[in-house]
Amino acid sequence: MSDFPRFMEPGDEKDISGRITPRDGPVTVRNPHLEHLSEDVLYHLDLSNKANDLPVMFSDVKFVCFGGSPNRMKKFAEFMVKELGVKIPAGMALTNISHGSDRYVLYKVASVLSVSHGMGIPSLSIVFHEVLKLLHYAKCTDVKFFRLGTSGGLGIEPGSVVITEAAVDGLLRPYMEVATLGMVLQHPAFLDKNLCEELLEIANQDKAYKSVIGKTMCTYDFYEGQGRLDGAFCDFTAEDKIAFLKRVHDRGIQNIEMESLCFAAMAHRAALKSAIICCTVVDRLKSDQITASHETLEEWQMRPQRVVAKYIRQQLGLE
Amino acid sequence: MSDFPRFMEPGDEKDISGRITPRDGPVTVRNPHLEHLSEDVLYHLDLSNKANDLPVMFSDVKFVCFGGSPNRMKKFAEFMVKELGVKIPAGMALTNISHGSDRYVLYKVASVLSVSHGMGIPSLSIVFHEVLKLLHYAKCTDVKFFRLGTSGGLGIEPGSVVITEAAVDGLLRPYMEVATLGMVLQHPAFLDKNLCEELLEIANQDKAYKSVIGKTMCTYDFYEGQGRLDGAFCDFTAEDKIAFLKRVHDRGIQNIEMESLCFAAMAHRAALKSAIICCTVVDRLKSDQITASHETLEEWQMRPQRVVAKYIRQQLGLE
Repeated sequence: MSDFPRFMEPGDEKDISGRITPRDGPVTVRNPHLEHLSEDVLYHLDLSNKANDLPVMFSDVKFVCFGGSPNRMKKFAEFMVKELGVKIPAGMALTNISHGSDRYVLYKVASVLSVSHGMGIPSLSIVFHEVLKLLHYAKCTDVKFFRLGTSGGLGIEPGSVVITEAAVDGLLRPYMEVATLGMVLQHPAFLDKNLCEELLEIANQDKAYKSVIGKTMCTYDFYEGQGRLDGAFCDFTAEDKIAFLKRVHDRGIQNIEMESLCFAAMAHRAALKSAIICCTVVDRLKSDQITASHETLEEWQMRPQRVVAKYIRQQLGLE
Repeated sequence: MSDFPRFMEPGDEKDISGRITPRDGPVTVRNPHLEHLSEDVLYHLDLSNKANDLPVMFSDVKFVCFGGSPNRMKKFAEFMVKELGVKIPAGMALTNISHGSDRYVLYKVASVLSVSHGMGIPSLSIVFHEVLKLLHYAKCTDVKFFRLGTSGGLGIEPGSVVITEAAVDGLLRPYMEVATLGMVLQHPAFLDKNLCEELLEIANQDKAYKSVIGKTMCTYDFYEGQGRLDGAFCDFTAEDKIAFLKRVHDRGIQNIEMESLCFAAMAHRAALKSAIICCTVVDRLKSDQITASHETLEEWQMRPQRVVAKYIRQQLGLE
């Protein structure tokens, strides 16, 4: 099991289903070995708990926002400068803290981190491990995690916003599997219901698009794994595809992407309050190809950003 | 099965084990639906078979070189300019052909493409699908694929070069699984033996480091999936870890990384001649952390690049 008894922490609360209740408090890691490391190099972030004074740099972080694309997360950081009224001193500029590695970008704007995670579960997993350790070494408390993503929708207008109530894999299983020393461990993927509902309330204030709470299917492959007919390989028919997508839609799946399962499973395992909010860029019941213009896609991608920015402003008493 | 009979192509040759023999000839896709698309937008490459004249741009491509890091693949393109003696006209410069997308970089130097694939199987899978379609639309023939990577070694000096003879997953299974419309399809991962041996012969000419042919373990997770004790989560002991790594090493695994299984499975499915050549950056039987200096890592990463560059020069009659 993912929470092996010998390393459970005394403060963990569980509800009747054995779930770990998301909680405020210090960001904890579940790894007793870290205490014995003389230095921990966060290799893919180009940071270290010895070479960098992580508490001085990061102890005030309260919101960590992830997204796939480095450019989009840079723009989100710039957007947050305006939204939070942060004054950047003359002669200074926002900088990618992880510029020494070209794997991810990491920006900090007051209490907000903006981090790219690349595409797919393995890529997200690496940066999630390292960000958790970063927050732990920096002694951060009461931190909330968000994923601001793009996705294919099912039966909803492109440009709609989906807030994930549960993430499942391509076989509708609600857990992430990690082959660990020869065992396939299953890490359940739960998200914070209250946070979902708070984000929906904010999203619903914008009448220009539809916002819903729904289940998200998370796949390991963009083409065949999502039932697309337009990959380099395809050995199913258009009828096979539509029958499958309709069946998963009937079971509550509102959108499909490639990271939610890992995000939800790792946040849950760390007992963090977290939410996933994605725009949809295509209705997969109608099309495989993403043909919206660059400008339209940019506008759609701003929708989750505006919702989370408003939530953060509310939390900070700026609304 | 991955090669569903109704879409098999007439020219496929199989050896006695049912393997598709890698072959020269046109780069083919195995998807009858593509013929019926009025336009195919290669979304993550920011190219299209309608908006771009792909045969004019790409028909001379003979070598496609992939690597995880965008900076590394930019440097490889610059390196190939020198190695191939390409004259760049005054006022011009190499440019990232996919600059309109910030997901991957794509450089072209004469008959060589240099492409980044990000980290992990899902990220590689997306760009592999789109590059295959690109080469198909461009009517390329006799193309060879290479992955130039970094990896953790097992029982070999960091800086060594491993050429992959077979890729397996974290449970030592020699195939990639893709959940496809509710079925878990297994795509076998084979590589080209002759190409491996040709690369080893070139690598062995450099006596500054050791080069070997061996099996590669490909995982979906960098920390727990590779038996690391230094992730945000860990519920096994140092003894558990070493016992596991020694057992896989005893079965011929020389290095561990996160893309080989997908690379080998997709290249095999497309009947492409392909090879995977990685430097090792740590000996996982001794350490989890990558602590080599930036300069040392840069030098190690050049080793697979130099080997493949020399192979390409030989093929082009430049040696």
